[in-house]
Formats: sequence, C-alpha cells, structure tokens
Amino acid sequence: MKLYAYWRSSCSYRARIALGLKGLEVEILPVHLKEGRQSSEEFTAKNPRQQVPVLELDDGAGLAESVAIFEYLEEQHPEPALLPADPILRARCRQLTEIVNSGIQPLQNLYVLRRLKAAGVDPEEWSVHFIRRGLEAYERIASDVAGEFSVGDAPSFADCVLVPQLYNARRFGIDVAAELPTLERIDRACAELDAFAAAHPDRQPDAP
Amino acid sequence: MKLYAYWRSSCSYRARIALGLKGLEVEILPVHLKEGRQSSEEFTAKNPRQQVPVLELDDGAGLAESVAIFEYLEEQHPEPALLPADPILRARCRQLTEIVNSGIQPLQNLYVLRRLKAAGVDPEEWSVHFIRRGLEAYERIASDVAGEFSVGDAPSFADCVLVPQLYNARRFGIDVAAELPTLERIDRACAELDAFAAAHPDRQPDAP
Repeated sequence: MKLYAYWRSSCSYRARIALGLKGLEVEILPVHLKEGRQSSEEFTAKNPRQQVPVLELDDGAGLAESVAIFEYLEEQHPEPALLPADPILRARCRQLTEIVNSGIQPLQNLYVLRRLKAAGVDPEEWSVHFIRRGLEAYERIASDVAGEFSVGDAPSFADCVLVPQLYNARRFGIDVAAELPTLERIDRACAELDAFAAAHPDRQPDAP
Repeated sequence: MKLYAYWRSSCSYRARIALGLKGLEVEILPVHLKEGRQSSEEFTAKNPRQQVPVLELDDGAGLAESVAIFEYLEEQHPEPALLPADPILRARCRQLTEIVNSGIQPLQNLYVLRRLKAAGVDPEEWSVHFIRRGLEAYERIASDVAGEFSVGDAPSFADCVLVPQLYNARRFGIDVAAELPTLERIDRACAELDAFAAAHPDRQPDAP
C-alpha cells in the first residue's frame, strides 16, 4: 500500500498513526500542499476533494478521508482493534473522533485559513477559538471514559485524531498541559508508542 | 429511544433519516438552537459540544455526532444495511459521507456563520463557496459509484448526509438540478422513500 501524504497535514498524520498501530507497512508518497500539488489533474483523479491523505491499495484503488480509512483498516485488519468492544464505548470513541474530525480540523485547515485571511479575518485567533472550544469538550468526555488512552487502556481512533490536533494546538500557542490536563496525559502515553512516534511530522521524508 | 433535535439542523435531519431507514421509532425532543437551548447546563451534560442531535438510549446513555450515531445503528440494528457489503464500496460510501460531514457542514453551521458575520465576512458567499466545492467532489465520485442512490441501488450513510446538504444548498440559492445532475437524481429517488419524507424539516414538531 502507498499513502499520499504531507508531513504537516494533520489528516495525513492521523492515517500514519492508524497504519502504524495496525502494523501495516506503507510507502509514503509526499504531496506538497503549499506548492498546490493536491490540485493537479493527476491528484484530483485520486481524490476529487483535492486533499491528503489518500491510501492507495495494491490493486490501485484509492481511499480518501482519514476516518473512512480508519474504518476500512478496522474491518480489513481487525487486530489490534482500534475501537473498544463495548457498543457504548465504541460510540463514545467515534464521538471523540468526530469532535476533532468535524468539529475542529475543518475550521483550521490550510485552505480555510487562507480564505479567512483573504477576507480580513485573523486566522490565528479564529483557529485558537475553535481548537480550544473543541478540545474542552473532548477533555470533558475523556475525563469520564479515558484510561491510559482516550477510551480505556488501548489506543483507538480517538487517539489517532487527538495527537495531531494537540500538535496543532501547540503550534497555535495553546498551553495544553495547563488547560487540558487529561489530554496532556493521554498525549504523553501515546508518544511512548512507536506508531505515534514514527508518524510524527518531523520524521517524514518531506519534512524540511 | 429519544432524539434531541432541531427541525432545520442538518445533522438532526441526517439522524432522523437513518433512524427511519432502520425502522426505529423515536420520540423527538426539540432543542431550540436559535434560542440557545443547546448551551444550557442540562444539555451540555448530554453533549459537551452543545450540538444536536443526541440519541438517548432507553438506559439513559446519550450518543452524539450524527456519523457516530450511524455507525452505532449499523452495528446494533444491522438490517436493513446502510453500508454496502463490498469493502471498497463501504470505504467509498464513508468517503462521500465525509465530504459532507467534515468537508461542508462544519463550515456552514449556524455557530460558524454567526462568527463569520461578526468578523465582517458575508456568510452567504462563504457558504455557497464551500457547499459548491464539496458537492462538486461528491458529484464526481457519485457519477462512478451511484446507482439509484449514492452508492449502488440501496440508500446508505451517504444519502443520509447528502439529502440534508442539498436542502441547505437550495436554501443558499444553488441550482442543484442545473449544476449537480447526479445528485438531483439521487435526491428525487430518496424523496420517494418514507424515511426521507418523514424526516424533512417541515414535518418536525418544532417547525414553524
């Protein structure tokens, strides 16, 4: 399998973590977002939404959208599980995943921030508002369901989206340790796992 | 089961459709978003993200996030299936779902549009841009995988998010029939099903 990705794209980072947790080897094919390579005709054919990541299977099929990739991996490569077994905790895990996936990240991706800036809105203030608002909701739910990780004691979809979002939160100047103590603790537990460490932006082939 | 919902919230509309397709009866409990009822202490305890829908199970557990609710329903009430059986088509169905769920809706919800307006950005122009951009990607993928519905000949998660998004697209003045012919055709097929018709905003107890 191949993964079209960009080193600092948080959705690429999510997919790298999930693949690593599943123990799947993939070739990383960098797509340079700041140079607009995602808008090329060749890449648009792979993902009409013009976004990374795209997971290309060995038969050439391309799968886009990080959460859709998670669910595909979970169904096709069930071990180790990235969802809890209990139905309510599975729902809670997906709820946490969505807080980041639909609640925060879409409002602070590169394309949106460029458009805000062009309209005269301060992209940093905007991002900080939505990141803080979303992560506070995550913290509140995690304080009920977290063990060592976001839901219980095994890493899950939720951790795959949380860690890249915390990386972004810190880039935007949010003091995670002070404001979000449960998430800080989970982030540290994740950092000790090879799959999270190897997926870090700084360790990607296209990192500067 | 009970569903906390608002008549015109597109994520509430999605959940109503999915519940209807599964043949599940729920009591609808309206939450008046324009009056800010989602920010009350009582509702925040149900969903710290302060958004509808919330599906309350008979034991009192509350499930939030429409896509997490879909996955819960699919696992607990597998028939009729709202995902195709083939692994690649399942991934494609979830990819289409995400184009709306994380690609469009988060950028045009009430809370975001209010914040844009306060910052001096025209919420309508902003919304139309993101709705059109996302739905064009959806149209391109659907033109490959659609049958009578978005993926093949059975309604799926993708249709549950598409129909409310088209309802919003028209509210913002997009000519769906002219610009997005595949989606227009799918929308018409959906409208003939009771689950979609009964879930329409105009048929909700809190509709004006």
